[in-house]
Amino acid sequence: MIGMNKECDGKCDSCLEANECTDPRKERYEEEQRLKLKMSKIVHKIAVISGKGGVGKSTVTVNLATAFAMHGHANYVGILDADIHGPSVPKMLNLKGQRLQTSSMGVFPVIGPLGIKVVSMDFLLPSDETPVIWRGPLKMKAIQQFLSDITWGELEFLFIDLPPGTGDEPLSVMQLIPNMDGAIIVTIPSEVSQVVVKKAVTFARQLGVPIIGVIENMSGFVCPKCGAEVNIFKVGGGQKIADDLSVPFLGSIPIDPEICSDSDNGMPFIIEHANSSATKAFMEIVNKIKRFLKHEERIESMPKTELT
Amino acid sequence: MIGMNKECDGKCDSCLEANECTDPRKERYEEEQRLKLKMSKIVHKIAVISGKGGVGKSTVTVNLATAFAMHGHANYVGILDADIHGPSVPKMLNLKGQRLQTSSMGVFPVIGPLGIKVVSMDFLLPSDETPVIWRGPLKMKAIQQFLSDITWGELEFLFIDLPPGTGDEPLSVMQLIPNMDGAIIVTIPSEVSQVVVKKAVTFARQLGVPIIGVIENMSGFVCPKCGAEVNIFKVGGGQKIADDLSVPFLGSIPIDPEICSDSDNGMPFIIEHANSSATKAFMEIVNKIKRFLKHEERIESMPKTELT
Repeated sequence: MIGMNKECDGKCDSCLEANECTDPRKERYEEEQRLKLKMSKIVHKIAVISGKGGVGKSTVTVNLATAFAMHGHANYVGILDADIHGPSVPKMLNLKGQRLQTSSMGVFPVIGPLGIKVVSMDFLLPSDETPVIWRGPLKMKAIQQFLSDITWGELEFLFIDLPPGTGDEPLSVMQLIPNMDGAIIVTIPSEVSQVVVKKAVTFARQLGVPIIGVIENMSGFVCPKCGAEVNIFKVGGGQKIADDLSVPFLGSIPIDPEICSDSDNGMPFIIEHANSSATKAFMEIVNKIKRFLKHEERIESMPKTELT
Repeated sequence: MIGMNKECDGKCDSCLEANECTDPRKERYEEEQRLKLKMSKIVHKIAVISGKGGVGKSTVTVNLATAFAMHGHANYVGILDADIHGPSVPKMLNLKGQRLQTSSMGVFPVIGPLGIKVVSMDFLLPSDETPVIWRGPLKMKAIQQFLSDITWGELEFLFIDLPPGTGDEPLSVMQLIPNMDGAIIVTIPSEVSQVVVKKAVTFARQLGVPIIGVIENMSGFVCPKCGAEVNIFKVGGGQKIADDLSVPFLGSIPIDPEICSDSDNGMPFIIEHANSSATKAFMEIVNKIKRFLKHEERIESMPKTELT
């Protein structure tokens, strides 16, 4: 009987045609197919990782997505907030209290400013106080469903904001998404952060994901009253990681109290403080990322004989 | 045959006496017993949690342990660095490159300044770049072994530095350690942090662990040149969480570039900058924690009839 064959791998024609097949491998196979189909409609898939928490991954993700949406890709940018325990993208895009929309056509992301499509655990929780007390397998399942069961539609860019560490969530994302363009590594300058963030670089390498480069966040501070430079978390740590591990350095974003306020107010700082030195530094980083993606396209479009 | 009995729960006399028993439940039971025995020799067990990364959990843990060791408990304080992916306690106590010591008597913690006993994943890794790419069950196992198989000895205080989130590691620690005194919650003032840290409070409550209180780290900044107050991450967020969730507020630690340098240099700031305003603020927090523990002792030592 269909699906009862012990040799069935869930991929045989009879399995796939049969609605009555109960083999759990069939469900897994179908989920994989849905995920591949969804992801095939997204041109660029970029992970933002760090290894260490609180270095500004979500701030970088939100402002990156905004930068690409502002410059020619409105309505074609998405963010997957893959931090199951501490989702903060919705707060930073003023989308708190929104819910994923379900219809007979599927489950749809929440639409943020500039048509940015956002999916986050936060859209499924009853309140801010509600913790998600889940072990790894459940988190893996949630991320898989975010990728395979959400109607992302046609996108130019999907930015994936990963939680700290090199455990279940980052591992799931890296393993589940086919043809990831690369990973952006975020750090703060301190040596304590460098130690932990270096692990993230090795992590991406071991999983075969290209490193787009390192961003140093919270780099230096200029007193707005007297102009004195105070290096609260030091400077130069990002460049040092890049040098030590031979990966590109994308740039530094200075500490700016406005960035914290903008995040709290749900406004990307590159819109709210377009002329700040933080925004200027950030836009240079964006240009380097664009060049990486263009270069990548060039390599991919080369005839195979040219690639040796 | 011993251990082959299908009804065997690994706890029967014959199982426990038999060396040849191969029932996996026997191993689990013995591990649980070792853990209980080890933990019974530690008077106070305190978790430092946050929900959000990069708020200063490890800085708080290291300085708390130092404060208790300095004031009457030298050689009787321990730190379990339960951040498997991003261990930073060894760097902050100048213990990088050390290894757990193994002898016929057992596996021993690394001894830090003031005799603080430290156990961290970092002591098992070949280099800083090595990531621990483990999913939940392996992490649970590692933490269990840190608690049950390390010869902690007699301790007055064990501080457990937990990674961000409310997933595998925090859950394992909270479930594994019997009679935890309570959890200290660390946040930075920003609203984005508050949203995530509130989840940690609910998490501890749901697991029946008392909340000792909330610490606000990186609270306000005074320019060392001109004395201007600049609220980089705002102020008052810790007090707000405490008020909103009816838990004690322990105090605020200001932003101080020396704290970052001290951490990078492996020196607790309360020793290196004993007269700074950060140290003064921190010592007030320590006194509140001491009062909590004394009060707890008073309640525990009351005759049962007085407790209604």
